[in-house]
Amino acid sequence: MTSFGFLGLGIMGKAMAENLVKAGFDVTVWNRNPEKTLELVTLGAKQGTTPKSVASQCDITFAMVSDPAAALAICQGPEGVAAGIGEGRGYIDMSTVDDTTSQIIADAITQAGGRFLEAPVSGTKKPAEDGTLIILAAGDQTLYNEALPAFDIMGKMSPFLGDVGQGANMKLVVNMMMGGMLSIFSEGMSLGLKAGLEGKQILDVIAEGAMANPMFKGKGAMFLAENYTTSFPLKHMQKDMRLAVALGDKLDLPLPTAAITNESFKQAIKAGYADEDIAAIYKTVK
Amino acid sequence: MTSFGFLGLGIMGKAMAENLVKAGFDVTVWNRNPEKTLELVTLGAKQGTTPKSVASQCDITFAMVSDPAAALAICQGPEGVAAGIGEGRGYIDMSTVDDTTSQIIADAITQAGGRFLEAPVSGTKKPAEDGTLIILAAGDQTLYNEALPAFDIMGKMSPFLGDVGQGANMKLVVNMMMGGMLSIFSEGMSLGLKAGLEGKQILDVIAEGAMANPMFKGKGAMFLAENYTTSFPLKHMQKDMRLAVALGDKLDLPLPTAAITNESFKQAIKAGYADEDIAAIYKTVK
Amino acid sequence: MTSFGFLGLGIMGKAMAENLVKAGFDVTVWNRNPEKTLELVTLGAKQGTTPKSVASQCDITFAMVSDPAAALAICQGPEGVAAGIGEGRGYIDMSTVDDTTSQIIADAITQAGGRFLEAPVSGTKKPAEDGTLIILAAGDQTLYNEALPAFDIMGKMSPFLGDVGQGANMKLVVNMMMGGMLSIFSEGMSLGLKAGLEGKQILDVIAEGAMANPMFKGKGAMFLAENYTTSFPLKHMQKDMRLAVALGDKLDLPLPTAAITNESFKQAIKAGYADEDIAAIYKTVK
Amino acid sequence: MTSFGFLGLGIMGKAMAENLVKAGFDVTVWNRNPEKTLELVTLGAKQGTTPKSVASQCDITFAMVSDPAAALAICQGPEGVAAGIGEGRGYIDMSTVDDTTSQIIADAITQAGGRFLEAPVSGTKKPAEDGTLIILAAGDQTLYNEALPAFDIMGKMSPFLGDVGQGANMKLVVNMMMGGMLSIFSEGMSLGLKAGLEGKQILDVIAEGAMANPMFKGKGAMFLAENYTTSFPLKHMQKDMRLAVALGDKLDLPLPTAAITNESFKQAIKAGYADEDIAAIYKTVK
Repeated sequence: MTSFGFLGLGIMGKAMAENLVKAGFDVTVWNRNPEKTLELVTLGAKQGTTPKSVASQCDITFAMVSDPAAALAICQGPEGVAAGIGEGRGYIDMSTVDDTTSQIIADAITQAGGRFLEAPVSGTKKPAEDGTLIILAAGDQTLYNEALPAFDIMGKMSPFLGDVGQGANMKLVVNMMMGGMLSIFSEGMSLGLKAGLEGKQILDVIAEGAMANPMFKGKGAMFLAENYTTSFPLKHMQKDMRLAVALGDKLDLPLPTAAITNESFKQAIKAGYADEDIAAIYKTVK
Repeated sequence: MTSFGFLGLGIMGKAMAENLVKAGFDVTVWNRNPEKTLELVTLGAKQGTTPKSVASQCDITFAMVSDPAAALAICQGPEGVAAGIGEGRGYIDMSTVDDTTSQIIADAITQAGGRFLEAPVSGTKKPAEDGTLIILAAGDQTLYNEALPAFDIMGKMSPFLGDVGQGANMKLVVNMMMGGMLSIFSEGMSLGLKAGLEGKQILDVIAEGAMANPMFKGKGAMFLAENYTTSFPLKHMQKDMRLAVALGDKLDLPLPTAAITNESFKQAIKAGYADEDIAAIYKTVK
Repeated sequence: MTSFGFLGLGIMGKAMAENLVKAGFDVTVWNRNPEKTLELVTLGAKQGTTPKSVASQCDITFAMVSDPAAALAICQGPEGVAAGIGEGRGYIDMSTVDDTTSQIIADAITQAGGRFLEAPVSGTKKPAEDGTLIILAAGDQTLYNEALPAFDIMGKMSPFLGDVGQGANMKLVVNMMMGGMLSIFSEGMSLGLKAGLEGKQILDVIAEGAMANPMFKGKGAMFLAENYTTSFPLKHMQKDMRLAVALGDKLDLPLPTAAITNESFKQAIKAGYADEDIAAIYKTVK
Repeated sequence: MTSFGFLGLGIMGKAMAENLVKAGFDVTVWNRNPEKTLELVTLGAKQGTTPKSVASQCDITFAMVSDPAAALAICQGPEGVAAGIGEGRGYIDMSTVDDTTSQIIADAITQAGGRFLEAPVSGTKKPAEDGTLIILAAGDQTLYNEALPAFDIMGKMSPFLGDVGQGANMKLVVNMMMGGMLSIFSEGMSLGLKAGLEGKQILDVIAEGAMANPMFKGKGAMFLAENYTTSFPLKHMQKDMRLAVALGDKLDLPLPTAAITNESFKQAIKAGYADEDIAAIYKTVK
């Protein structure tokens, strides 16, 4: 049986690793703060001591940490993954990191003889617990094929997207569409309300038509309740809009709707809503 | 039992009237070309002779014709609805017409003593046949209440939206959102493809996430097949975008995403795609 | 010698008529409030009694009134210009009116046998006094040729632009460019100041380069002084932006920069600056 | 008398150095290809052997090279400026380089004990020959004060703008305005022509009004002649628009007009006009 390592047991990582353990896989877990490993060990996981040792013991090691700095830290250095990976074993970073970071990690792993996949996910706590994440995998395809049984437990889909970088590109494309949809949705709701329509009726009509989607349902209710509790911070969305427009720039592709949506999110940041939910764009539109 | 008239038996009107007849209602039908009434009469409908006579015989008369000129023609003149409506009977125009036309008809009917509802619909042939239209009713609320049993047969929802004009406003709001969604969707698909992602994978990822909606599914398949067979003509969408932005103008509401989407649809018209499906916006973006 | 009539002696009209009188022309003046004619009569003008009588006595009658309603009022009715114009005499409306109004007046005059020019002007009080207006003439070219000696006194240029409507179109084109320039100028100044540059230095650098223009000089000083004293009301500029974008719409011409500038002016109106100077757009940008 | 060095004798540098020599200054010149120094030596310049030797012999050394790579090359390395500058002498890089490059050079010079100014210029061959450049100086103010007599010969204005980086920022601000002006100008000209106005008349009307500026005069003539001979390559303008929008992003400043102008320039690049003059944006608008 393929043995798996799992590095990083935050909200997301713990739920994902737990699903692997419960599915009966051979899983070795590690976390910077080792207390978080206890519960998983109780469920049947093995306890790892360092990223290096986990990577050297397991066929495939997954990582799910909070930011690029943490992703680099567990990969590099004397106790890092690259130091232990050796010939042929696999490393799959599921954290959300930028292009450059992903490429640095890819290079470190492949130069050490290992195989690498970037596999950022779409979805938050609930889908992680339910095993319904969308996993955007890119890099070494043989590793992808071997990891599929684990991906199938953690996510509801895990397409293989090509070379390292394409996982990040897919995430940008998806988030750019999300930002644009939210912007036109905010404008439409504002227009309807100013024209004297009732918000709930607008949402009901949308919900029955060809545009019906879970995001409008969720964010629409937030608009009407004037509730902007952060689930996806607005400033992160604006960063993704900016990166998507920059990618268009690099590819000589004009993206006027995305560009102007980016400016609308900047307007919201200027108004002080950077740390509120992406739904707060509505406050600057209405 | 409330008696209903139905004027206009084109693709939409015939399907709607047929549903009323099949549901057991007392329905009198009329069409400019009387041949089209035959099939309905076979099913149990009565044959009307003029809009005036239908309106004078039935408690509530519906109309579903192709454009503002036709809507005015069946309402006005010696054989028109207004000439027959009399005191207290109801007239419900379900055609898609502009504000001014709707108001002219409303005035003609109310001055003749009748009650009026505008009730444009969202949905095309299939929903008309299936009785799953979205009916956007506005005007006289007592008439709305009396018409509900018929609306329930023809549509899956029929909210009452307020004074005459609010049905049209709701349609503008909904279509403006549709145009904006299509524009950002086109840009996102184009960006992904230029970056080397596969179109089908982008659609699959979208289909599993919070943005999943029937329109993206349908139009996305059209993008990839380069099939722009007209279901909703692009020039009509551009007209609605323009009217929505103009409504924002009137209400002092900036709508930057809608305004720029309007320009993108104009770009598509300039490129010669006015009569193709709204999906053809993709051709000018990619 | 050609005899001229002049209707409307407001700030603009009085200055323009006075220049004609001082240049030695035969001028008959009329104003709704007749007191305003006294000073011109002292200078040598004749006193007219009604628009009709002026139009019937003079070879060419000019009008310069404040809005479309006033322009229609002096043209129509038993004492209006159309009632007196007769065969072959000329009427030149220099007021700023919309297309429809201009066409109604043109039709009234030509149906009465007269010749018509629309000739809106670019420039305010000072250029009117100095005889340096820009006169945008369109309509009957024979009348234009006969009026040239008077145009040469009132303005520094008076191109003949074609059929009735082209004077208004030229004004829209010019004002659309003005609005766009002001919007990018506001953004540039804001960006420079936020980046730590000094406003005066930005203006100085612009003033020495290929972009140097009187408007930037004047409005730039207003930005830095936070002085938005109305010379050209912001709401009128927004209306012109809207009409220009609508003209582009009619001609299937995408105008993305103009469309987004229109939204920026709407943002300024939403923020409460409708009646301030066009320079107040800067307040919503910075 | 202050002694000056001048590195880089391309089209711009040769004209600038020649003006210094003709003004009677003590100038030592160097160029990668030494043949280009001959003419200046004939006029009285001294011949330098390496950037290092020039920097070590002269009080203040200017550089004017074609791109960031060349700017780094003459500064760094055993024969570079930094190796020779020593304590207290000055280096003024007048090349157009990006922020990062400018900062690397500034650090190299100051760590070697020298003083540094970035001083990119606005203006091309003719202003360089005429000594009418606009010099955007930023960095060490004592060096600026000492260089002023030379700046006064080379340019018509040379404001001191603050710390290193502000020269580049001023250039971005100025070019962003230029791009926006050109975009709205293209749209206005296109709208006027489509509406049936004559191009020459539009230019004449603009030329007499508050918006009159040398750029519109020059580029307007190019539009009408359909002449897009490169003076400022369109792709460079697009790059500056992108950097300006990115600077706004960094400063949380929405710049909708600039953002959409950037997309219009990208449209022109997509259409194949990257290497034509910035005036070629008109081809994608009209």
